[in-house]
Amino acid sequence: MGLIVQKFGGTSVADADRIRNVARIITETYRRGHNVVAVLSAQGDTTDDLIAKAAEINPNASKREMDMLLSTGEQISCSLCAMAIEAMGYPVISLTGWQAGMRTNSTYSNARIKRIATERVLAELDKKAIVIVTGFQGINKYDDITTLGRGGSDTSAVALAAALHADLCQIYTDVDGVYTADPRHVQGARKLEEITFDEMLELATLGAQVLHNRSVEMAKRYNVNLEVISSFSGKPGTKVKEVAKTMEKSHVSGVAKDKNVARLALVGLADQPGIAFKIFSLLAKEHVNVDIILQSIGRNDTKDISFTVSKQDMELARKVLEENAESLGFDRIDFNDQIAKVSIVGAGMINNPGVAAAMFEALYSAGININMISTSEIKVSVLVDINDADRAVQVVHDRFFSDFGVGN
Amino acid sequence: MGLIVQKFGGTSVADADRIRNVARIITETYRRGHNVVAVLSAQGDTTDDLIAKAAEINPNASKREMDMLLSTGEQISCSLCAMAIEAMGYPVISLTGWQAGMRTNSTYSNARIKRIATERVLAELDKKAIVIVTGFQGINKYDDITTLGRGGSDTSAVALAAALHADLCQIYTDVDGVYTADPRHVQGARKLEEITFDEMLELATLGAQVLHNRSVEMAKRYNVNLEVISSFSGKPGTKVKEVAKTMEKSHVSGVAKDKNVARLALVGLADQPGIAFKIFSLLAKEHVNVDIILQSIGRNDTKDISFTVSKQDMELARKVLEENAESLGFDRIDFNDQIAKVSIVGAGMINNPGVAAAMFEALYSAGININMISTSEIKVSVLVDINDADRAVQVVHDRFFSDFGVGN
Repeated sequence: MGLIVQKFGGTSVADADRIRNVARIITETYRRGHNVVAVLSAQGDTTDDLIAKAAEINPNASKREMDMLLSTGEQISCSLCAMAIEAMGYPVISLTGWQAGMRTNSTYSNARIKRIATERVLAELDKKAIVIVTGFQGINKYDDITTLGRGGSDTSAVALAAALHADLCQIYTDVDGVYTADPRHVQGARKLEEITFDEMLELATLGAQVLHNRSVEMAKRYNVNLEVISSFSGKPGTKVKEVAKTMEKSHVSGVAKDKNVARLALVGLADQPGIAFKIFSLLAKEHVNVDIILQSIGRNDTKDISFTVSKQDMELARKVLEENAESLGFDRIDFNDQIAKVSIVGAGMINNPGVAAAMFEALYSAGININMISTSEIKVSVLVDINDADRAVQVVHDRFFSDFGVGN
Repeated sequence: MGLIVQKFGGTSVADADRIRNVARIITETYRRGHNVVAVLSAQGDTTDDLIAKAAEINPNASKREMDMLLSTGEQISCSLCAMAIEAMGYPVISLTGWQAGMRTNSTYSNARIKRIATERVLAELDKKAIVIVTGFQGINKYDDITTLGRGGSDTSAVALAAALHADLCQIYTDVDGVYTADPRHVQGARKLEEITFDEMLELATLGAQVLHNRSVEMAKRYNVNLEVISSFSGKPGTKVKEVAKTMEKSHVSGVAKDKNVARLALVGLADQPGIAFKIFSLLAKEHVNVDIILQSIGRNDTKDISFTVSKQDMELARKVLEENAESLGFDRIDFNDQIAKVSIVGAGMINNPGVAAAMFEALYSAGININMISTSEIKVSVLVDINDADRAVQVVHDRFFSDFGVGN
């Protein structure tokens, strides 16, 4: 008996049958005596269809009008879901972002939630209604509709769970939970019962796109109990918490792969103070996000600086640096987008220095060359050739998760 | 230089090209120095598609959720139109019903506008923006979305024109204006330059569905200058006013046909006082709208009462009356749904008693039998066999509008 926020993504509400399935999950929770607030995304391809409609009319439409357009997607899925619940005989009401009090800032298409005026939702819950809220959207101080950008519906759900002091926030999706590696590509990948917020954050950043980072960060900040769970299988999912209750046997929670990586290297830089600052502030000015950075001693009192960016930013980064070749003073730029990042994540890692070594050993034994290394408290990332990436994930996963693995 | 409200129906915004066409009409008006508020319906079949989606999930969905669903249609067309206007380089903003301050009562799916809080629209006009407002919708006192029912977008436009004291309200549609008869079926039908509100009301009621009655009634009440005009032809339309400035040559403004008519006759009613009251209050209780009523003397101190209803109400009316056969005391019920109503409308009619006679003569000459007659100050309606209906409209139209016609 408590308050549960449940979020359902676009594939979970893609057609009438799936909406009925979602309605069943919601009403079963309600029948067990819980108050339920459900947050829904737009159906399947609705958002893409609306974007295509807009592009046909104006490829440079203002974000304000795009948000006005796109916000209809969730309004449709939510009203349809409410109708499905009505058909099952339960009290229900659907609310848009503005009706549910989701107040955001004014960054159209990528707004941040500022606060939630919960009066209406609480009033409906008091009346014992199931409340269905449109994800991904809110209104700003001008009473204009805003959308939250990527992962927006997850963020809506976590924010509502925080504001309503919900006992649990369940993120229903098309996967069973969080795995030690991508189960579609890695043999022996196992579902985790629990994972910490920090581990989840690293995994999300590393390309395991089960939950968007913004929602995990918010859940961590407000200590919202999260659960990632399948809307199709009916099995228990993965709990995401501040501290995992039952520490997993392994120090490593998961292995992730990110192919959207490109590496640039400035070779033969003069060894002046402030040169790194110069380089990265030039890139920041162009909104190029830099990930791993390595600096090494070159020949003849020069040094080399290597760093990674996303593939789509590589050309821009190159252009910016070449335009400033004179003031930076380097011999040449090397670049490579045929690489991938493979990472292990685990809160137990920091107290166990053998973990990184075990990863490197597994890669070495498989004949996979390591290009660059980066470590943090709960993560070790390596760059490898893109053709080695899948095998690298598998051998690293085998090393930490096979039943006969050493070092666990 | 003034304020013009322009309304565009579903066919006028059906696809990207038509939306661009609407954007051109709006921006041309704006370039001539006017403030423009445009009210749009949902695109083409959007509303029907949404209704089909709902029916698949719950054929008995609540009207509250239906309104939540259907209101997305206009939000889509309005944001797309705003994008088209942005692409042409004009300042523009789209507003939903609630953003535009359309406050309604709480009769979901058939709400009435109570008042319009015009602050937002006026503020946008002050900024010299073109304002695009979703037709057909508003919000009630609970901040829930309502829709206005049939003809709702026309009503939204006229209500906005009244609240904003607009100089003109143009109803753009797929016809050129108001005709003396349906130009698709009647040879020689002519477009009227002007028509009075009352004539328009009668024509709308009689099946010439250019403008919905609710919008004409509201225009009459607030003395809003209306114009019915084509969004495709570019020709001047028909002005609808309190008093038509240039009186048309003819006393008759138009000929209309309504095939959605059924006639019932109670034969052999006892001649008691209050019997008509009994009959029609029974029907009113079942929400059966009765149109023409005729009472005549029958045989042996009995009387007959005939009346017309819409075809879909005929069975219900019959059932109600048969269930009360004993208390009403009649010999039998006759009924006939193979009939049509043909009417002439004209503000000049009342001072010209020859008009009705001329109509009857035209029908008689064509060998068309008249079933029932009803007259008002500005209208004469007759019931004829459904197979005679089209010919009846043509011969009556010929009588009043052919260049060689007599009695004009």
